[in-house]
Amino acid sequence: MKIRIINPNTTRSMTDKIGHIAQSIASPGTKIVATQPDSGPRSIESHFDETVSAVGVLDEIIKGEHDCTDAYIIACFGDPALLAARELTTAPVLGIAEAAFHVASFISTKFSIVTTLGRTRIIAEELLKRYGFYDQCAKIRAAEIPVLTLEHEPDAALRLIIEECRRAKEEDQIGAIVLGCGGMADLTEHISQEIQLPVIEGVSAAIKLAESLIGLRVRTSKFGDLAFPNPKEFQGVFAHYSAGASMQT
Amino acid sequence: MKIRIINPNTTRSMTDKIGHIAQSIASPGTKIVATQPDSGPRSIESHFDETVSAVGVLDEIIKGEHDCTDAYIIACFGDPALLAARELTTAPVLGIAEAAFHVASFISTKFSIVTTLGRTRIIAEELLKRYGFYDQCAKIRAAEIPVLTLEHEPDAALRLIIEECRRAKEEDQIGAIVLGCGGMADLTEHISQEIQLPVIEGVSAAIKLAESLIGLRVRTSKFGDLAFPNPKEFQGVFAHYSAGASMQT
Amino acid sequence: MKIRIINPNTTRSMTDKIGHIAQSIASPGTKIVATQPDSGPRSIESHFDETVSAVGVLDEIIKGEHDCTDAYIIACFGDPALLAARELTTAPVLGIAEAAFHVASFISTKFSIVTTLGRTRIIAEELLKRYGFYDQCAKIRAAEIPVLTLEHEPDAALRLIIEECRRAKEEDQIGAIVLGCGGMADLTEHISQEIQLPVIEGVSAAIKLAESLIGLRVRTSKFGDLAFPNPKEFQGVFAHYSAGASMQT
Amino acid sequence: MKIRIINPNTTRSMTDKIGHIAQSIASPGTKIVATQPDSGPRSIESHFDETVSAVGVLDEIIKGEHDCTDAYIIACFGDPALLAARELTTAPVLGIAEAAFHVASFISTKFSIVTTLGRTRIIAEELLKRYGFYDQCAKIRAAEIPVLTLEHEPDAALRLIIEECRRAKEEDQIGAIVLGCGGMADLTEHISQEIQLPVIEGVSAAIKLAESLIGLRVRTSKFGDLAFPNPKEFQGVFAHYSAGASMQT
Amino acid sequence: MKIRIINPNTTRSMTDKIGHIAQSIASPGTKIVATQPDSGPRSIESHFDETVSAVGVLDEIIKGEHDCTDAYIIACFGDPALLAARELTTAPVLGIAEAAFHVASFISTKFSIVTTLGRTRIIAEELLKRYGFYDQCAKIRAAEIPVLTLEHEPDAALRLIIEECRRAKEEDQIGAIVLGCGGMADLTEHISQEIQLPVIEGVSAAIKLAESLIGLRVRTSKFGDLAFPNPKEFQGVFAHYSAGASMQT
Amino acid sequence: MKIRIINPNTTRSMTDKIGHIAQSIASPGTKIVATQPDSGPRSIESHFDETVSAVGVLDEIIKGEHDCTDAYIIACFGDPALLAARELTTAPVLGIAEAAFHVASFISTKFSIVTTLGRTRIIAEELLKRYGFYDQCAKIRAAEIPVLTLEHEPDAALRLIIEECRRAKEEDQIGAIVLGCGGMADLTEHISQEIQLPVIEGVSAAIKLAESLIGLRVRTSKFGDLAFPNPKEFQGVFAHYSAGASMQT
Repeated sequence: MKIRIINPNTTRSMTDKIGHIAQSIASPGTKIVATQPDSGPRSIESHFDETVSAVGVLDEIIKGEHDCTDAYIIACFGDPALLAARELTTAPVLGIAEAAFHVASFISTKFSIVTTLGRTRIIAEELLKRYGFYDQCAKIRAAEIPVLTLEHEPDAALRLIIEECRRAKEEDQIGAIVLGCGGMADLTEHISQEIQLPVIEGVSAAIKLAESLIGLRVRTSKFGDLAFPNPKEFQGVFAHYSAGASMQT
Repeated sequence: MKIRIINPNTTRSMTDKIGHIAQSIASPGTKIVATQPDSGPRSIESHFDETVSAVGVLDEIIKGEHDCTDAYIIACFGDPALLAARELTTAPVLGIAEAAFHVASFISTKFSIVTTLGRTRIIAEELLKRYGFYDQCAKIRAAEIPVLTLEHEPDAALRLIIEECRRAKEEDQIGAIVLGCGGMADLTEHISQEIQLPVIEGVSAAIKLAESLIGLRVRTSKFGDLAFPNPKEFQGVFAHYSAGASMQT
Repeated sequence: MKIRIINPNTTRSMTDKIGHIAQSIASPGTKIVATQPDSGPRSIESHFDETVSAVGVLDEIIKGEHDCTDAYIIACFGDPALLAARELTTAPVLGIAEAAFHVASFISTKFSIVTTLGRTRIIAEELLKRYGFYDQCAKIRAAEIPVLTLEHEPDAALRLIIEECRRAKEEDQIGAIVLGCGGMADLTEHISQEIQLPVIEGVSAAIKLAESLIGLRVRTSKFGDLAFPNPKEFQGVFAHYSAGASMQT
Repeated sequence: MKIRIINPNTTRSMTDKIGHIAQSIASPGTKIVATQPDSGPRSIESHFDETVSAVGVLDEIIKGEHDCTDAYIIACFGDPALLAARELTTAPVLGIAEAAFHVASFISTKFSIVTTLGRTRIIAEELLKRYGFYDQCAKIRAAEIPVLTLEHEPDAALRLIIEECRRAKEEDQIGAIVLGCGGMADLTEHISQEIQLPVIEGVSAAIKLAESLIGLRVRTSKFGDLAFPNPKEFQGVFAHYSAGASMQT
Repeated sequence: MKIRIINPNTTRSMTDKIGHIAQSIASPGTKIVATQPDSGPRSIESHFDETVSAVGVLDEIIKGEHDCTDAYIIACFGDPALLAARELTTAPVLGIAEAAFHVASFISTKFSIVTTLGRTRIIAEELLKRYGFYDQCAKIRAAEIPVLTLEHEPDAALRLIIEECRRAKEEDQIGAIVLGCGGMADLTEHISQEIQLPVIEGVSAAIKLAESLIGLRVRTSKFGDLAFPNPKEFQGVFAHYSAGASMQT
Repeated sequence: MKIRIINPNTTRSMTDKIGHIAQSIASPGTKIVATQPDSGPRSIESHFDETVSAVGVLDEIIKGEHDCTDAYIIACFGDPALLAARELTTAPVLGIAEAAFHVASFISTKFSIVTTLGRTRIIAEELLKRYGFYDQCAKIRAAEIPVLTLEHEPDAALRLIIEECRRAKEEDQIGAIVLGCGGMADLTEHISQEIQLPVIEGVSAAIKLAESLIGLRVRTSKFGDLAFPNPKEFQGVFAHYSAGASMQT
């Protein structure tokens, strides 16, 4: 089976890291295609970044539809374009925030999130509400590190994240921590050992859940609001979307 | 004062209609700039359409920032890119769904929504929850007409909308109806007279609320998650966003 | 147009202050009638005060109905008698808590309230729930000053309010502050400059929103629970309400 | 022990009926004082009626405070002035809607309400939310009979109520019905036998719950928002409330 | 009337204490049967303990059905087996957590819970949500004392509980405290005097509420999900439940 | 890896069926141990049945702990004893209702449940709320067939279930259906083809999710309320639980 994992930002080193983590957790028979949009922001740290990144995510879904993809993963903690992506395919599509929340809820009754910048807390809060995990999240915490610091100063970033995770463990009465950024995917084991608490990271979680859905042969429902979009004309730089029907082949 | 009303789709006749309604309701001193993206879908009827349209909305905000704009309105009932747009400016930004819900809540304790296609119901439901009006909405109804039918077969569309509004009045125990599409803006008075119930339409509502906010001199908060996005590099067709700092001038 | 702004307590200096603020924010063509009940408490700081004040508010609505009023504002942060008032008129009626919440939600994703006495926090909480803004309010704070201290010791009151607002800014991760008392209406600008955060005050907010509703020509719905009360006999000091039909003229 | 049951409207026959039901269900040692305001509406069928009736309820509480009252009951299904009444006394105060909801939740997992006029549904809905029983109520139904029809045409009223209760039983998947008007108190047994489902009526429920609270020696908390109101000056017809301190004796 | 109060754990001294408190608060005509399961844990401090204890509770209900019982009380703060117990009888069944929440809501607008071990907080949280009191509870606190410490080191336990109650009073802005363990039933008055705040304890609350329900002659509804279980075969140590029909005699 | 799937009732044919489905969906390297309690009801159709079955489930967990089990599944749609089971092991434990809800939420925005008897609807409702999927479930429907009819009259049962599923598809505006009974596990494909809508069944869903969690090496958190129960004495038929410490080996 083939899983396409899409890093919605355009930082190659992050895409590579995500792909590496994904492949290392995937089952032997699973082929990981780690990809990133041709166009979009280097990192996603605001509603603006997220909104712009969404189009690139959809392009990667469309490419995947021509590449016999069995499942898709959107590897940014805001799950950009998730519902739109589901419209474009019958393959399952998962976001990494979504995946992490689901897994955390299986092994604990309360978890906290530790994310990068405080200004993205509202995005996580919105997702918790939409997916139904709002009451199961004790607190959304931010280590206040820009996303790319995870790439350029990994040691400093790690130290700050561990500090925030420690506060979460001491103050939040939780059973697990969810790491709130795709770029933290390689830190999970280290942090978990350091603070002695289960730490859930969305990239791995999404890969294994995607394999589950493939194994179950469940497909994104084409009844109701996730049906393929009605074909229509698009203008300008998006004119290539006009051939909507081709999305369905 | 100058209000930029952005039709997120690329159908000129709809932009003109929206601009016309907007100007007719605006105060004498208000200049309406009705605009639409250079790129994007002809109509918005799915998560996919909405996600793609969002980038065009942001471009129009950025243009507006170089045009002394006092407030912005996003004139599609899904309020695409609303929070991202608010990040890009200190001027107030309103969505027409948001505006319609607020106004409906001032004059009734329960309202129903009548929208175009059933598949977009979930978008309205999500917005009701996000803004806090979920309990005040009795039912989200769809007349099952494609958006562009409002342009091409207005009489047939009107008849179907009135039928659905009548069912809403009879069955939903409501005090008002919210029309769930920017393209219905010119039908409000006709429908209201026909069914004898207050009918709220978001374009007018948003114009008057925007004038209120301008009059109050309240500005989109730059503290917390609506602060200007951190400047960063963008790739590909979005490379022009890299000069993030210029957004703030 | 004529807006009747009702101070539900019977302290003339507060009515004058509210009237002054209202007139200063109103559009040139708007005539403000600032009024207060003949009967009722000097200040409203409890459920008891609020319940007693409600009758006076309704009397002022009835007077307004004989004075060609285009919209009403109830200028106490508990929004006393709001739904009852809406039954008595087709003109729009707004509460200042309601108005402030709506405006705050347009420019921020989270706000805190700073009110007078802690014992009234529960009233604000109830309103947040009823109007749908409960999740958008980070915290309800009290400066623990009696309402009339705002009249008699304005400098001391201001200092305490600014201190509480500063704590809100530092601790609550918010984008705006809502002032929780009609008597604070004149402090908005001062506080906002002092703490460098948008500060919303309900009197101004309500005036501009009321002008919006008048401009939209939307009227309080007479379908369902906001219909005119069924005429009936009243006893004792309320016997004059028996001529219910006259309310509708 | 002495329980003061206050009919918030001024229809003597209804007060008598309520008093009769109350006495018949009360324990041997319980003295029932059934009373009604000197001033107020003949029946309560709107927000306006309810708001006006609230002052009379408070007057009856104050009278009760000079009459060694052990507990109070507010016998109108909108529970008018409940929190304000609790401020005025250390004795327990119960509303009949509140009492009926509590009892229904002890013997069923879902109940429906059958009330008088449809326009008062919103009042019941608000109470369900405030008290926490919103999810336990399957449906709020109205027999569409004016309150006083219960007094003047009891047989016709009974027939309509039974019809609505029957529909509730057949359609709502419920375990019990709550009668939504104090004036229905004498119909409980008849309806219950007719439709073969537990029927809860608030007057009886409130009497027995009040006896419980008296027996427990729990008193309305004077900490926080139910503390006695701060004494202050009242104007006009409410001037007699100025001697606030005397409320506490 | 006869009330069977079931201590779900198998510690005799606790059963005796609960029986003693129950009898002391009961009305003269009420006979208390205090009982405990033959099988089960010495104390209940986990989901596991609670699940195992539930069967013993049901056995005690069945015994009660052969002993002319008028009402049942389940005297553990997790209310184990409450809905199952209600299926087995037409007599009212109350849990002590449930009873305490109801009573606390009658005399305050916000309360905090002080329970034994932190790990049981999630059980109380679940109950608050199920019964509808989640928003009325300010905080669930734990004194971090094992349940049996209440039996073996009552003075030390009392001191820790009072400390936690004091913190609740100072920090939680509440009107009352609910004690979160049946084993604390004898401490209520002492704690209340010490911290000067109403303290609610579930055993007493449940006794008086049960007397109310008996007085009201309301019975557990046999319509819908609380109907008697369908008779069926049980295997193994539960084979005696096979004669399901006999439960109904 | 070894997954122990526990049928909480004692009907061998159902255990066999569940085991067969489980094995057929499991990955090649997964060994399925399908088991049922020695003691308990033949079917689970009430709160009583569920409560009694819970002990047997826990016994099966304890047996599994001596059998190198990698994950557990509780194969009854009420997810009996789920949290208690999680306390007893570090291996992941899943319920089939839980698993089905999670999977349904990945491929649709709204789903309906079709269960056996109407009286168990409340159990499903409670689970939807606890897990966070309440808003994503359009309707809980019952085909009104006793559980064992699925074993003894499979054709008649299937027909009724398909009829109810068809109504769900036509009336509920959903993207998927969740089958609400472990005994329906073998019907999924047939029903899905018949009604042309994705049909989710919990046994398969749970197996694949369990494999995911094993692959992720996440373990049930032993911090907070899912920690191993404190060892203590148990009486009577549960005396063997006294050696609590041994559970942890």
